[in-house]
Amino acid sequence: MDTAPLSEIAHQSVTFACGLTLDGGAHLPTLTVAYRTYGLLNQQASNAILICHALTGDQYVAETHPVTGKDPWWELMVGPGRPVDTDKYFVICSNVLGGCMGTTGPGDVRDDGRHWGMEFPAITIRDMVRAQRRLVDHLGITRLFAVIGGSMGGMQVLEWAATYPDAVFAAVPIATAATHSAQNIAFNEVGRQAVLGDADFCGGQYYQTGRIPAGGLAVARMVAHITYLSEQALSRKFGRRLQPGKASALFGDMFQVESYLQYQGSTFVRRFDANSYLTITRAMDYFDLAAEHKNDLSRAFAGTRTRFCVVSFSSDWLFPTAESRAIARALNRAAANVSFVEVASDKGHDAFLLDEPDLHRIVSGFLSGCALHAGLPS
Amino acid sequence: MDTAPLSEIAHQSVTFACGLTLDGGAHLPTLTVAYRTYGLLNQQASNAILICHALTGDQYVAETHPVTGKDPWWELMVGPGRPVDTDKYFVICSNVLGGCMGTTGPGDVRDDGRHWGMEFPAITIRDMVRAQRRLVDHLGITRLFAVIGGSMGGMQVLEWAATYPDAVFAAVPIATAATHSAQNIAFNEVGRQAVLGDADFCGGQYYQTGRIPAGGLAVARMVAHITYLSEQALSRKFGRRLQPGKASALFGDMFQVESYLQYQGSTFVRRFDANSYLTITRAMDYFDLAAEHKNDLSRAFAGTRTRFCVVSFSSDWLFPTAESRAIARALNRAAANVSFVEVASDKGHDAFLLDEPDLHRIVSGFLSGCALHAGLPS
Repeated sequence: MDTAPLSEIAHQSVTFACGLTLDGGAHLPTLTVAYRTYGLLNQQASNAILICHALTGDQYVAETHPVTGKDPWWELMVGPGRPVDTDKYFVICSNVLGGCMGTTGPGDVRDDGRHWGMEFPAITIRDMVRAQRRLVDHLGITRLFAVIGGSMGGMQVLEWAATYPDAVFAAVPIATAATHSAQNIAFNEVGRQAVLGDADFCGGQYYQTGRIPAGGLAVARMVAHITYLSEQALSRKFGRRLQPGKASALFGDMFQVESYLQYQGSTFVRRFDANSYLTITRAMDYFDLAAEHKNDLSRAFAGTRTRFCVVSFSSDWLFPTAESRAIARALNRAAANVSFVEVASDKGHDAFLLDEPDLHRIVSGFLSGCALHAGLPS
Repeated sequence: MDTAPLSEIAHQSVTFACGLTLDGGAHLPTLTVAYRTYGLLNQQASNAILICHALTGDQYVAETHPVTGKDPWWELMVGPGRPVDTDKYFVICSNVLGGCMGTTGPGDVRDDGRHWGMEFPAITIRDMVRAQRRLVDHLGITRLFAVIGGSMGGMQVLEWAATYPDAVFAAVPIATAATHSAQNIAFNEVGRQAVLGDADFCGGQYYQTGRIPAGGLAVARMVAHITYLSEQALSRKFGRRLQPGKASALFGDMFQVESYLQYQGSTFVRRFDANSYLTITRAMDYFDLAAEHKNDLSRAFAGTRTRFCVVSFSSDWLFPTAESRAIARALNRAAANVSFVEVASDKGHDAFLLDEPDLHRIVSGFLSGCALHAGLPS
C-alpha cells in the first residue's frame, strides 16, 4: 500500500491568524483549517455544497486517502455524476476542528514548542461549525447551497442551520441526532477510558516517545465499530464462521468477526490521533442543540427558510429513527420546509456510507428540487 | 465496607481427584468445585434446585458477598418465601469452571508452582455443566427438581437439559440464547482485547507482580455493562445529567453515566480475575447448542421429558426475545413441554436480576405447577 505516516502528510489549508474563541471560553491563538474542494464555484458563488464528516472522517471525501491509500470515504455520494455531483456543484470538505488531518487540533505544536495533547481546550460541535464558516467566508461564499453530513456530520449540519440560517439554503442531516444520548455517551466513554488507560498514552504527551497508545485506541475503534453495524449485518457478514489459519490465544480458531474487528482497530491507529479521538468524542457528547435553545429544539430553527431533508435508517441503533423524527417534529413546529425519510436498511448506522440506492436517490432528488428553487441548473 | 482480597477468601468446596477431561481434549488433573447450598434436602433428595450463574456471578446467590459485602446477587429470586423458596427447596449454586471464587480456574496454582494464567485450557459451557454434575452427584442427588439461570446461566440450563435430560425435571432458561451471536462475540472480543492490551496483564502471569490489569478489565466491564442495560434504562437513570463536583479530564463536569460506568469498572476489578474473564467469555462465544446436535436445535431436546419455562425481556438487546423464541420453537419441534413468556420491561438484559414482579410470578407459578407433578409440596 502506498501510504505515509500521519504526521508527514502536507494538507491543503488556510490559516486564520486571529485564531478562534471557543464555546468553553478558551481562545486558540491561530486557526488552521485543512480542506479539499471538488468541482468549480460558479460566478455567483451559489453552487457550493459543504460536506461535514463524521467522528473519524476527514476532508478526503471524494479522492483516495493519502494515509491509507483507500477509496474516497463517500465515493458513492460525492463525485462526477453522483448525487452530490461535482460536475454541477462546488464541493467543500474540511477536516473538523480538533482533528488530525491538518486542521488545528491536539496534535499540533504550541508556541512553547510542546504539543497540545490533553491541554487542547474542549470544543463543541458549534466550534467546529464556526471554523468551517471561516473557511467558507475565505472561499468567497456568502450562502452555501447545501450542507450535508451523516452521524457527527449531521450534528454539524443541524448546527449550521441553527447558527447561520441565512447561509444555508438546504440542509441534509443523515443518521444523526440533535442531542447525544446517554447510551452513546457511555460507548464514547468506554473508548476514552481504553485510550487513557493505555500505558503508552503518557498523559497525552506521546508524540515524542516514538510510541502511540495503539492498543487503547484500537479497542476504542473496535467498540465503536460494533455500534456502527446492525446485529443483522454482523450476523450476515460473519455469523459464527471461523477464520481459517488464525489461531486465537484462547482456543484454536478465531471467529471471523474477531479478526475483522482487530483489523479495524489496527488500521485505524495508523490514521488517527488518540488525543483527537478524545477531543472529538467529547464534542459529540456535549452536543445538545435543544439545550442551546432553552430546551426547545424548535427554537433552534425559528423563522428558518432553509429546506431540510432528514434521513434515518431503520436498523441504525446508534442514531435510531426516533432521533431523526424528533428533529423533523421540531422543524415542523418551527414551520420549516422539511421532508423526513426512514430508509429501510439492515446495515445499521454505517448505511449512510454504503451502497444504499434509496439514500442516493433521496439526496439526488432533494438537491435537484432545491436547485430549481435556488435558480441553479438542476 | 467489610471486605477481603479475592485470593484470601476460603470457599466451601469439594475436590475431585480424578480431574476433568474437557471438550477441547485437555485434562484438568484435579477439579475443585466451590459451592453454597441453602435450605434442606428432603429424604428422597427430590427437592434440589440448581442455580446457574452468569458471566460475572458466583455461588453467593442468596447471601452477602464475601468480597464486596454487597447484597446477594439474586436476592429477589432466591431465599425464604421467594420464588425459589429455600423453605421448600434445597438450593445449590456453584462457581463455574474457569471462575475465580474457588472453583478450578486460571488463577489456580498448578503442580509446578506456577499459575495457570493463559495456559488454562479453553472450556465450554458443557464443561461447566459436567463440573456441576460432579457436585450434584457428590451431594447425593440423582435428579434435580429444577435448573434455573439467566444469561450465561441460561446457557448452562439448556446444556443441562440437553446433556442430562433424565437429571432435570424442570428447566428455566432466562434471557439467554442457544447460540452466541456475532454481535455478542464482538462485544466479548472488545473486552478481551482491553484486558490483553493492559500493560499489567503480563501475558496472564500477573499474580506475583503485585499488580493486576485493572484498567483493561475495567474497560471490559464498562462495555459489557452498557450491553446489560437498555437505551431507555440508561436515559431514565442518567439522561444527560452532569455529576456535581466531578471534573472530567476533558471538560468541566462529567456526565453521571460516565461516573457510573467508571464506578462499575473499578469495583469489578476487586472481585474478578482477568484470566477468568477471558476464559469464561470464550466459553460463551463457543456456545452453539445446535452445532452440538447436527445444526438442529430440536435434536438437543429429542425425547425430553423435562418441563421448560423460557423467559425473555422485551428490551433485552443482548439476548433478544427472538433468541428465546428460537429455543421455544425447537422445544416445540421436539414435542417438549414448554411455556414461553416475554416479560414487558424497559430494563434491558439486567432485568433478570432486578425487581420484575412478572418474572418472579412466572418462576414461582411454574415451580409450583412442576412441584405438583413431581409430588413435592407446591
